[in-house]
Amino acid sequence: MHSRLEQRLDELYAIGAQPEGGAYRGLYDDAWAKAVDLVERWFADAGLKTRRDAVGNLWGSIDGTIKGKSVVTGSHIDTVRRGGRLDGALGIVAGLTAVESLLADTGQPKRTLEVVAICEEEGSRFSTNFWGSRAIVGELERVPDDIAAAMRVRGLDPARVSSAARDDIDTFVELHIEQGAVLESSGAPLAVVSAIVGTAHLEIVVTGRADHAGTTPMTLRHDALAAAAAMIQAIESITRSLGPPAVATVGRIRVEPDQMNVVPSRCVFTVDLRHSDLGARRALEARVRSLCATVASERSLGIDIRVLQEKQPVAMHPDIRAVLARAARESGAQATELVSGAGHDAQILAARCKVGMLFVPSIGGRSHCPEESTKPEYLELGTRVLQKALQIIAY
Amino acid sequence: MHSRLEQRLDELYAIGAQPEGGAYRGLYDDAWAKAVDLVERWFADAGLKTRRDAVGNLWGSIDGTIKGKSVVTGSHIDTVRRGGRLDGALGIVAGLTAVESLLADTGQPKRTLEVVAICEEEGSRFSTNFWGSRAIVGELERVPDDIAAAMRVRGLDPARVSSAARDDIDTFVELHIEQGAVLESSGAPLAVVSAIVGTAHLEIVVTGRADHAGTTPMTLRHDALAAAAAMIQAIESITRSLGPPAVATVGRIRVEPDQMNVVPSRCVFTVDLRHSDLGARRALEARVRSLCATVASERSLGIDIRVLQEKQPVAMHPDIRAVLARAARESGAQATELVSGAGHDAQILAARCKVGMLFVPSIGGRSHCPEESTKPEYLELGTRVLQKALQIIAY
Repeated sequence: MHSRLEQRLDELYAIGAQPEGGAYRGLYDDAWAKAVDLVERWFADAGLKTRRDAVGNLWGSIDGTIKGKSVVTGSHIDTVRRGGRLDGALGIVAGLTAVESLLADTGQPKRTLEVVAICEEEGSRFSTNFWGSRAIVGELERVPDDIAAAMRVRGLDPARVSSAARDDIDTFVELHIEQGAVLESSGAPLAVVSAIVGTAHLEIVVTGRADHAGTTPMTLRHDALAAAAAMIQAIESITRSLGPPAVATVGRIRVEPDQMNVVPSRCVFTVDLRHSDLGARRALEARVRSLCATVASERSLGIDIRVLQEKQPVAMHPDIRAVLARAARESGAQATELVSGAGHDAQILAARCKVGMLFVPSIGGRSHCPEESTKPEYLELGTRVLQKALQIIAY
Repeated sequence: MHSRLEQRLDELYAIGAQPEGGAYRGLYDDAWAKAVDLVERWFADAGLKTRRDAVGNLWGSIDGTIKGKSVVTGSHIDTVRRGGRLDGALGIVAGLTAVESLLADTGQPKRTLEVVAICEEEGSRFSTNFWGSRAIVGELERVPDDIAAAMRVRGLDPARVSSAARDDIDTFVELHIEQGAVLESSGAPLAVVSAIVGTAHLEIVVTGRADHAGTTPMTLRHDALAAAAAMIQAIESITRSLGPPAVATVGRIRVEPDQMNVVPSRCVFTVDLRHSDLGARRALEARVRSLCATVASERSLGIDIRVLQEKQPVAMHPDIRAVLARAARESGAQATELVSGAGHDAQILAARCKVGMLFVPSIGGRSHCPEESTKPEYLELGTRVLQKALQIIAY
């Protein structure tokens, strides 16, 4: 029998369905608005008091018996283009299902309990991301014109975004899919996230000399691509030798003059470096820099390294990690610990409250695509552990 | 004092001069026509009988005292875009200057002596090259429409191209710049070319899997670019270990999806492989293929290797090599032997006659650019040795 959790995931996935597969719900677009309306009905049906804030985050709350800050669960309602069924959606649906069961089984909580459908996290429609969570922590100042116009279509006033800021959240807990294949390959059904990695994006420019591919002996060349290949190899090899959670990716590469019979004079490539520990990430970056400089100098080539973007790693709160581990244990689940290599709203919300995350396995590690999937028993397990954690914190 | 050789090179270089430096004389364009007219006047002034064939090759001849096949020297009159002063031009001007001196010093030759300005070799204006020499060996069958139209502008009849074929050439000798830096770095002022390399152009497609740059540990990746980098490194290293004249160049590379934060799923790159010995070139290609297959298989990636183009190496005729070596010796020059890494008309003409080539050093190995240059004493030496060789063969 298809569970209520699965039914709700199906209903949400049907909104914004794309002809070529997958769904797309971009911030403030029609599918997004339809999805928010649907979730609002679910919240109301579950007996939650619903409210939309100035950027369109949807909140469903049940007051606690004592005054004080809220315990919040949920995730983002937007998707990437041709996104899958679970990214974001799972955290909302599981959060609602967990709170619903708690209310039915245990009654009114001691602390105010809320479920949130965050309006945007993916950055798929506009050149922004973490729009919803940045509004919650009061980080939004200026609304770009294109977003402002889209807000007005949904009856939201761009001048009021700062009113979405909250300082009355105690804890935010989110269930999410891993979006990688670590859990699957380790056989663990669940992970407590220890930290969200920090990222550095570098652009490396290697400058050599264009030469005739026929008349220039190997020993007289200053081949920018051959040098870049040596650098890419070495970046992979030192990152492997560091072991998890260090990852390094060269995702883009260009050569000039880009002719079959000319030795490349210039090669530009990017490096995406991630680690959960800021010191370790910086140490990795320093090794990458020194190694690339060495390769360039050995080959008498020029090199220029530029930081395009840098994001600090964010640790999950130790109290919440402990609660999640206990909740897993009490649910009879073998949970492991994992560093998230992808970004999540929790890393933004961590500026204002205690945060924690649970991951369930992604089949084949696939995400951001129609193939995105998780075994039903793991979806149920994740929801059960989330419910247990909310019970520990809020009751 | 500026020699007649240098003066003529200057005059020719001025035709088709580009505002941003360098000269461009494309097949059948205005600069080309002006240059052919100029050389024709030079030929006539030197007492040569001039003739233009059906594709616009310009011939200047002096009959020998005995009947028989001709001894020909010369080079191509077209240039690359923003070309230099010497590529092609030197062979024509030096050939004319050598024949002129021979006529003045020694009188009528025994064998018919000819200087040729070959209409096209570079492939800069149309998607063809060796147009002139291919006409001479009777290899042209069909004239593409764009070339036919350009021929008509110059009063040439595309239907008559086959009449340019000749079977009465005994020997073709050409003086050319090296276009590389081997002579300069060895200190030799002159080289007798032993062979023109054969070339294979390969396209290698590596297929992996696109993965999230944050959530996919190094050990679970199928990174097409990291594998390509290992291949490019290995191609360079085996080619270096083979030593000259083997060369290998990876000149183009593309990745997909070409995003900073996505592990590349596909990488396409080209390999230009050259060697003067067909067996050695094929052995190098076989090693490149097996090595790339090994890297792909170690990393569980797909690989597809396609030959885009293949050209056989051409050996210079042993008799002509011997004559050129003797001519150098008798001129007091320390000539070395060299394999040409670039293509030349001689490799086409070798199908119908004995061929030989002399190289003089290129400063900094530069060619196909305005910086293309050779020390004046080497230009003089090359011309003197060419003259001596023509004397040995034709008198």
